[in-house]
Amino acid sequence: MKTFMDEEFMLQSPTASSLYHRFAEKMPIIDYHCHLSPREIYEDRRFDSISQVWLGGRNDDGSYYGDHYKWKLMRANGVPEDSVTGGADPYDKFTAFTGTLEQAVGNPMYHWCNLELKRFFDIHEPLTKNSMKRIYDQCADRLANGPGMSVRGLIARSNVRYIGTTDDPTDTLEWHERISSDPSVSFLVCPSFRPDKAINIGKTGFVSYIEKLAASVGKEKLTTAGEVCNALSNRLAFFAKHGCRASDHGLDYVAYRPCSMEEADAVFKKAIAGAALTTEEVEKYQTALLLYLAKQYRHYDIAMEIHYNCLRNVNERMFSLEGPDTGFDMIAQYACGNALAAFMSELDKTNELPKMILFSLQASDFDLLSTAIACFQTGALPGKLQVGPAWWFLDTRDGMEKQMRSLANLGLLGNFIGMLTDSRSFLSYPRHEYFRRIFCNLIGNWVDNGEYPYEEDALKKIVEGVSCRNAARYFNIEL
Amino acid sequence: MKTFMDEEFMLQSPTASSLYHRFAEKMPIIDYHCHLSPREIYEDRRFDSISQVWLGGRNDDGSYYGDHYKWKLMRANGVPEDSVTGGADPYDKFTAFTGTLEQAVGNPMYHWCNLELKRFFDIHEPLTKNSMKRIYDQCADRLANGPGMSVRGLIARSNVRYIGTTDDPTDTLEWHERISSDPSVSFLVCPSFRPDKAINIGKTGFVSYIEKLAASVGKEKLTTAGEVCNALSNRLAFFAKHGCRASDHGLDYVAYRPCSMEEADAVFKKAIAGAALTTEEVEKYQTALLLYLAKQYRHYDIAMEIHYNCLRNVNERMFSLEGPDTGFDMIAQYACGNALAAFMSELDKTNELPKMILFSLQASDFDLLSTAIACFQTGALPGKLQVGPAWWFLDTRDGMEKQMRSLANLGLLGNFIGMLTDSRSFLSYPRHEYFRRIFCNLIGNWVDNGEYPYEEDALKKIVEGVSCRNAARYFNIEL
Amino acid sequence: MKTFMDEEFMLQSPTASSLYHRFAEKMPIIDYHCHLSPREIYEDRRFDSISQVWLGGRNDDGSYYGDHYKWKLMRANGVPEDSVTGGADPYDKFTAFTGTLEQAVGNPMYHWCNLELKRFFDIHEPLTKNSMKRIYDQCADRLANGPGMSVRGLIARSNVRYIGTTDDPTDTLEWHERISSDPSVSFLVCPSFRPDKAINIGKTGFVSYIEKLAASVGKEKLTTAGEVCNALSNRLAFFAKHGCRASDHGLDYVAYRPCSMEEADAVFKKAIAGAALTTEEVEKYQTALLLYLAKQYRHYDIAMEIHYNCLRNVNERMFSLEGPDTGFDMIAQYACGNALAAFMSELDKTNELPKMILFSLQASDFDLLSTAIACFQTGALPGKLQVGPAWWFLDTRDGMEKQMRSLANLGLLGNFIGMLTDSRSFLSYPRHEYFRRIFCNLIGNWVDNGEYPYEEDALKKIVEGVSCRNAARYFNIEL
Repeated sequence: MKTFMDEEFMLQSPTASSLYHRFAEKMPIIDYHCHLSPREIYEDRRFDSISQVWLGGRNDDGSYYGDHYKWKLMRANGVPEDSVTGGADPYDKFTAFTGTLEQAVGNPMYHWCNLELKRFFDIHEPLTKNSMKRIYDQCADRLANGPGMSVRGLIARSNVRYIGTTDDPTDTLEWHERISSDPSVSFLVCPSFRPDKAINIGKTGFVSYIEKLAASVGKEKLTTAGEVCNALSNRLAFFAKHGCRASDHGLDYVAYRPCSMEEADAVFKKAIAGAALTTEEVEKYQTALLLYLAKQYRHYDIAMEIHYNCLRNVNERMFSLEGPDTGFDMIAQYACGNALAAFMSELDKTNELPKMILFSLQASDFDLLSTAIACFQTGALPGKLQVGPAWWFLDTRDGMEKQMRSLANLGLLGNFIGMLTDSRSFLSYPRHEYFRRIFCNLIGNWVDNGEYPYEEDALKKIVEGVSCRNAARYFNIEL
Repeated sequence: MKTFMDEEFMLQSPTASSLYHRFAEKMPIIDYHCHLSPREIYEDRRFDSISQVWLGGRNDDGSYYGDHYKWKLMRANGVPEDSVTGGADPYDKFTAFTGTLEQAVGNPMYHWCNLELKRFFDIHEPLTKNSMKRIYDQCADRLANGPGMSVRGLIARSNVRYIGTTDDPTDTLEWHERISSDPSVSFLVCPSFRPDKAINIGKTGFVSYIEKLAASVGKEKLTTAGEVCNALSNRLAFFAKHGCRASDHGLDYVAYRPCSMEEADAVFKKAIAGAALTTEEVEKYQTALLLYLAKQYRHYDIAMEIHYNCLRNVNERMFSLEGPDTGFDMIAQYACGNALAAFMSELDKTNELPKMILFSLQASDFDLLSTAIACFQTGALPGKLQVGPAWWFLDTRDGMEKQMRSLANLGLLGNFIGMLTDSRSFLSYPRHEYFRRIFCNLIGNWVDNGEYPYEEDALKKIVEGVSCRNAARYFNIEL
Repeated sequence: MKTFMDEEFMLQSPTASSLYHRFAEKMPIIDYHCHLSPREIYEDRRFDSISQVWLGGRNDDGSYYGDHYKWKLMRANGVPEDSVTGGADPYDKFTAFTGTLEQAVGNPMYHWCNLELKRFFDIHEPLTKNSMKRIYDQCADRLANGPGMSVRGLIARSNVRYIGTTDDPTDTLEWHERISSDPSVSFLVCPSFRPDKAINIGKTGFVSYIEKLAASVGKEKLTTAGEVCNALSNRLAFFAKHGCRASDHGLDYVAYRPCSMEEADAVFKKAIAGAALTTEEVEKYQTALLLYLAKQYRHYDIAMEIHYNCLRNVNERMFSLEGPDTGFDMIAQYACGNALAAFMSELDKTNELPKMILFSLQASDFDLLSTAIACFQTGALPGKLQVGPAWWFLDTRDGMEKQMRSLANLGLLGNFIGMLTDSRSFLSYPRHEYFRRIFCNLIGNWVDNGEYPYEEDALKKIVEGVSCRNAARYFNIEL
């Protein structure tokens, strides 16, 4: 029996171990997609307890912060909502979470939590009902007194070189400016451009968002789809000046229904007037906007991320109580291959296809996406088109292995840009470690099985590439 | 080379073996979903030959009994129908089956058959062309003379604590009553409620079934959808009095098209008048009925099972010759995630969501379903919503591993209610053993790989839970 | 660490090794589906360099030959098109390819290429940047001077017994006739019937193809769908006389929309008149033609292959530059189960269902297809209906394992007709070796894990069957 989570964690063969410890472990982290708060980075926030960091609470405005991955598991264990997102005592919440975790055999949460305790709190026993009091107290002590336990300290200790936050086009980027003006910050923090609210013409809040967008470019109102495009372009230029390297689009599904700008204008006006839109109208407007933006991304050499096949807020009762991002989202199963291909083809015709990173929540899409991107890899940048790392519900050992095996089978695994945290927590950097161990295990086992030769230079290049260097090249980040 | 099917069968690591033999092996069986005949249990039927048990024959009414899983394999081996479901000599059928089995390397049937011979007939050599005569004779001898070889004997020897049969709402439950009045029956046998025929408004036989349903509640006829609901509710109360703990719905696909009861009535009247219905009409009636029944299940604390993504009776020629359930069904590929979520959300709004167990024949649905149930786990019962164990075509080692890995990755494997036989055969209890071995192997390997700590209390709780205790808690069965 | 690609390559257990070396390795190859040129076989072509064989070039008519699998990978590595399909120096292309291959860890191309070097060129070091010059030169030397390095030599050395080429119905089969008249050819080369162009009524080129088809049966024109059927039937009879054993249909998706021959005629006339067709019209015509042809195949005992779930030529810019089959195709995700089942059922009703082999590019279709064929296995031929071996993008170690596990779980793996190359290259026969190693590894591991008994006769039958004998029986080829 291997010791639980020792230095050889997830490394099942000698070459796997050697590749990890010699090449992967030391590489810096390029966290090119996350949901961290630039304000908290700037203010170098500290936390009171592990319960606060992991399970969160409410912000001043009544919205929730914390980790809906953990909340979901607690609810599945019958924990009452008061001890999940409610006002229960932090230690009681922690107790309920520990009891939940015990049942979570095989869940990545088990590994994430124990890795975080190990790496940030020097805790080397597993979190169980027996150890939880000791662990809770030790965490509290470290959080209060330990060096490197503030937000910046946690990031710096994790050897992070780059953080790509996720920001609304109307954001002033005030906190990004402060960070970049502060010479004591040892890592790069840049905004990413997420214009979902300007795209989601069918959803609640569109009209008021357009007003906000107008204000952000100094206008009273935006009256056509073309003006929306101009406003977004204006903001994108502003983001680009602040080092923006990626955009992000969260779509239920990818549609491709090209239309003239006049048609898009008509749909836009209808929406602004408060009329209900048909699915066809929504898809036309969205296609027009996405094509426009994609060309802009190409212009600024900004990567376009598309996340799809997610069904959000499916529990209406809980949505009305707790709002979005509280653990009530599920995997969808839309067939978007044709639309994605048509979208990329249209852009490629005029050499305006940007770098793209595609994410789906359907594991059975990995192969399709791997073959789709291969049809458009015609630029000089190795791996210009990418299938993103296993996302959200797929961000598990099995999901990562499926995604990497798919890439390996159908493309060049060696050119993969690798892991991101996609996280709201400053403790989540060990997910990069977890990924690298799983990656090294995959290819190390191939070597030890005689399926790839032990060519040290090639293996070093691949391991360092997928761990860090490919992302650095892709996003123009100096190491 | 490990010995074929010895005590370490399917157990590939020391901890896997230890967990199975110390904790799983001894647990009683809760067989919460099967198709056994309560009459045969009451009458304590005996069998003549292994051929009769495995390959069956015809009932007095001309319908078939036996195992269509085996028939399918024999047909794939070119065996003529006479030796499959026809009148061929039992030993000739057995010969043809043995020849088929030899080609079935990797098929669960290979394991099931050999496990059944081992556990019930003390046969410890594999079934092959060389051994088949000996085995046939030894089985015949045991069936004729052995102790514990009647139906009740087979069940008792298997350490079965609970059997949930599958019954039509119009069933008198006469045999269930006799069983429960017989103090010599050492296990609990309760009906499950399967109202498919009242839901399948688009299918042949609906009108005559509604007459039968009317008669079962002492009415001459049912004239509205509301009256159908009342009749079903009436029968459900009767079933509940007989210990019913689960309902079962077999749907081609899950639709969600809510409508008023007036609309449902109109569709119902049209159907009773013999008119053809549109897909939309069928879906409206079905949605109305399913919502109504779900609330009733919640009232009686009865679990709602939904089985979908099956395409039945696809070979029209063979269907006309042999009728349903004779081996001519296949996997379908409907996308039902949105409908399932909307259905559950509607019920959850008024706190009328029952316990639910979801089964799909698409392995790629496991992840979707695991995330769907997680959005509705808001009750006090741990694991109120369940993804059912790998069903029918997926009831294989690979299918079980996929289902359990999906649960583990996306929820709490420790709260899984585990295995059922779904079988028509009294010899099929070793499928619980097969499942438990595969389950223990999965988590035992994780422990031996250092991915879960060897915490004996937690592991014992998980193993006993998934083997038996979770189902007992879920269905309120005393152990 | 196992040596890279030694004699135990892909064989992870003693029984796996024994099954491969004792039974599989020696079996002849039945390559029942490929895209080799009968003319090049007859003319016994030789090649100049490994670059020419692997990376190809342009034919005299400007079309490309070569391996689009390799081109795709090179493009994904940022190699400019000039060094992919363009006019760059052969050694420069080879250099670019070698650099690409290094990044292709886990890709079957890595294994295919190194196996080809080993088996045909006696090269026993891996292809890397260090070895590429030596290897290039040694290949050139062998190609120029080696024995058995012409097309026929390569085939004969590979122990090939049968080659099924892929041919248009209008083909004169001139080269097939010459081959069969040449007593020095030691293997059988027969045409396969691929009438896609007569089926693809919605696509460009249909009208002119129908003229060509008319000419091939000595008519001036074909004026009805019925006449198209007759012409195809006429050509099929001609193909059958030349030993044709298989047909091939490449469909985006499988539709089933039965119609009268009058309706099909009307659609055909509309198409000939140059009018645009609705999807419904296209599907009607295609259904009529496919049903007609299936019955013809049954008549001639010709197997019907259906390949679907492919989206071709998705990059419009590259398609206009390079034409079809140059590496711009991807996996599609159509749900065709219902249509396939209805199609087979219709044919089975009148006992006119031919042997069929079904291929989908969606790995998640394997289970569905395995259950679909099981509903129609009612003939005397074991395995009359087949799920084809993992195709194209799925032709990887993982894809093959998924396909074989699906077959094993849901049918009789022992009756599988096994591998084909589907290749345009005369060096691709080691793919049969690769397949056999993976197959033997799969079942050998089961034996060594105690999941199938070591019954030598049964295992020998299964291994020789899947490697060769099943295909020989299926296609009536003498060994």
